[in-house]
Amino acid sequence: MNPLKSPLLTDLYQLTMLQAYFAHGMRETAVFEFFVRTLPPHRNFLLAAGLEQALEFLEQLRFDQDELAWLGQSGLFRKDFVEHLRGLRFTGDVYAMPEGTPFFPQEPILRVTAPIPQAQLIESRLINLVHFETTVASKAARSVLVAPGKLLVDFGLRRAHGAEAGLLAARASYLAGFSGTATVLAAPMFGIPLFGTMAHSFVQAHDDEAAAFVDFAKVFPGNTVFLIDTYDTESAARKIVALAPQLQQAGIAIKGVRLDSGDLAAHARNVRRILDDAGLTRTTIFASGNLDEYRVRELLAAGAPIDGFGIGSSLVTASDAPFLDAVYKLQEYAGKPRRKRSPGKATWPGRKRVYRHYRDEGLLDHDVVTLEGDVQPGNPLLQLMMRGGRRVNASPGIETLRTYAKAQLATLPQHLRELDGSAEPYRVEIAPALQDLAVELDRQSVAGQPLPANVMC
Amino acid sequence: MNPLKSPLLTDLYQLTMLQAYFAHGMRETAVFEFFVRTLPPHRNFLLAAGLEQALEFLEQLRFDQDELAWLGQSGLFRKDFVEHLRGLRFTGDVYAMPEGTPFFPQEPILRVTAPIPQAQLIESRLINLVHFETTVASKAARSVLVAPGKLLVDFGLRRAHGAEAGLLAARASYLAGFSGTATVLAAPMFGIPLFGTMAHSFVQAHDDEAAAFVDFAKVFPGNTVFLIDTYDTESAARKIVALAPQLQQAGIAIKGVRLDSGDLAAHARNVRRILDDAGLTRTTIFASGNLDEYRVRELLAAGAPIDGFGIGSSLVTASDAPFLDAVYKLQEYAGKPRRKRSPGKATWPGRKRVYRHYRDEGLLDHDVVTLEGDVQPGNPLLQLMMRGGRRVNASPGIETLRTYAKAQLATLPQHLRELDGSAEPYRVEIAPALQDLAVELDRQSVAGQPLPANVMC
Repeated sequence: MNPLKSPLLTDLYQLTMLQAYFAHGMRETAVFEFFVRTLPPHRNFLLAAGLEQALEFLEQLRFDQDELAWLGQSGLFRKDFVEHLRGLRFTGDVYAMPEGTPFFPQEPILRVTAPIPQAQLIESRLINLVHFETTVASKAARSVLVAPGKLLVDFGLRRAHGAEAGLLAARASYLAGFSGTATVLAAPMFGIPLFGTMAHSFVQAHDDEAAAFVDFAKVFPGNTVFLIDTYDTESAARKIVALAPQLQQAGIAIKGVRLDSGDLAAHARNVRRILDDAGLTRTTIFASGNLDEYRVRELLAAGAPIDGFGIGSSLVTASDAPFLDAVYKLQEYAGKPRRKRSPGKATWPGRKRVYRHYRDEGLLDHDVVTLEGDVQPGNPLLQLMMRGGRRVNASPGIETLRTYAKAQLATLPQHLRELDGSAEPYRVEIAPALQDLAVELDRQSVAGQPLPANVMC
Repeated sequence: MNPLKSPLLTDLYQLTMLQAYFAHGMRETAVFEFFVRTLPPHRNFLLAAGLEQALEFLEQLRFDQDELAWLGQSGLFRKDFVEHLRGLRFTGDVYAMPEGTPFFPQEPILRVTAPIPQAQLIESRLINLVHFETTVASKAARSVLVAPGKLLVDFGLRRAHGAEAGLLAARASYLAGFSGTATVLAAPMFGIPLFGTMAHSFVQAHDDEAAAFVDFAKVFPGNTVFLIDTYDTESAARKIVALAPQLQQAGIAIKGVRLDSGDLAAHARNVRRILDDAGLTRTTIFASGNLDEYRVRELLAAGAPIDGFGIGSSLVTASDAPFLDAVYKLQEYAGKPRRKRSPGKATWPGRKRVYRHYRDEGLLDHDVVTLEGDVQPGNPLLQLMMRGGRRVNASPGIETLRTYAKAQLATLPQHLRELDGSAEPYRVEIAPALQDLAVELDRQSVAGQPLPANVMC
């Protein structure tokens, strides 16, 4: 069983529901939508990501022999049901916003239309992929917005939540505008540029810091970024300056230095002066160490002469909002719109579209969410990505998505670009047709009383 | 390339360091230690976890043909170095605290002794595994401590950070005392008990809620936990009561109901009364929906008649402390103790042991960290787990670890069991031998001035 592909990577209740659908012959078409109910306090927008991995998952969905054997002997399921799973494939349609599109609460960013067992089974992994990449892309975009023109590198693998988190965080942050990652495997897997310097342990393993610098430079003459904070940052910078003539004679360009601790603004100023005084004006300063978008903004506002930032744990765990209120909900079954009415978790029923409206300057103005059939003016955001279980287009590739995301981020008005939650949230209108349908469903409901006004989110 | 096993799941600088070690013939023995520098504000202890996965990773470490080919054509490395990597295996020793041991800042929980290239290469993935499972086990233990005797189930897969995070969170939380998980694949992979009920979509796909309950019960007569909040919790509870006679006649036991939204304490009281009035006194109430250990404590303190809790996003993302200040640092090379002196990130040098002291009642009193050779009274916590790249014992199995963790959690004194940060942190003494060594190293240092007192963490 491959943990990254196994259909057993799901919640038990998906499989029990499938057995119940199977037992009762329920296989009509269901429409599920993925959306976020509310924004975390420090987010004014989210950036859609993870669609590529979601589509891959859907294309490859199948139970292998080991998985069927395990299900058969688990004592949880009936033999005829397990046998039936052998033939299960995803044959549905997917509409989605392209990765890199900013979106807002109550807007479906992905819609699945498929026989209900298929659409149900995929819920857990689909959310798992799209939620995580969206969480990280949305976090990464904040650093990109506060540090235009700076080199931004994902340094987060070690404290990412497992292997896949490290890899997908590298992808999501690059898509959102980061310059690259330190995670090697992200290069062969996703084509993401790699960055890396030296380790403290390399310096420590030498009895002499200057000797470590020379040993490193000799091996990587074209990519020499020296880590200078192992003992004392300024004295290390002076060692680099002292070594510069002999390094340059050996054909080594002193590309940069990296600071990783202490008062980064003060160290950066001191080091810049030491380098400049020695004529090393083109040697860049790269900073890392417990950074996030707030610290980056602060350092830049203080005029710290830093050319690039390595951002790790806070990025890959999206530490101020490590999860979103993201859900995947049944909106229609057997041709009828459906509505969950749980307090605080009620949904807008039916299959929907999202239309975006811009101001004259090309900035976002507002969005309208409405029913599929209620054609509206504005730019429709959901596009057909998969039909009958097959992609309608080849994967666009990460560079195309990154370019698109950059253009999309440029449409954000100033108040949505701020790091703190805006007093003026982006306007998402629920169209009258959709509101009317919700009221009508509550009225018809045989299940209980009409929905009290205060439970809508 | 298998993302879960690939040695390319590392930071670029590990590989550049390896090429530099290779070029300079540096392959002496290095000692690295994994430890946490400081506790997050709401933690009084951490629970060690992830060793099993770390040892598996070390045993299986090797570059496959695809990985070598990619490295060769990446333009980043020399051909002779890439060829050399073909033979790389982990041949070192590992000492560690058993999984399920509570530990505290500055205490190494895992120590690697190996030729420096091996010990360096593994850093990123070793931290990635041990840090994440420790983060989740430490979070899970808090729910276990506030809800003794309650059923606690991991519901987090969908908002876990990728596939591996979902699986390892199931493992780490079970190890820490959870009752099981909803993540199916965690059963075949780790032998963890599975729990699951019904989905809202199943209820919604029926035109009538009571019909959905009957359809579900017929298929799972032995495991009937009804989800009752899709429309109106109390009216759904009344439907269950009305159905009870016919269900019981059909041999269906109404094992429980699940609440997933609204005021859980109020709903639980109402539903308990409705069930009890109908004689369904053995039907349990299970609650879920944005729960964490604080909410669980609050619900239990309010006397809510809830028998079990499904805890998801907050658990698997450890949302109040999604990463720890966990590091893996070179402490000795070529027989000499080494010390990093970066401000706020200075390390205690040398290979170390941790001794634990108990009070008469068997509760933790304090720990002592000292050098390997400085034998002390107390219970030594680091045990030899791997010698020459091979485990010294077979994997203990998850049930054994869980039993051990339970006994270990019972040694925590009351002030460390609180959810909020204690005013009286646990005492970890740095033994005089270790303090003297640090002073001596600073004195000898050719790298700079002695370390100012205020930079030690």
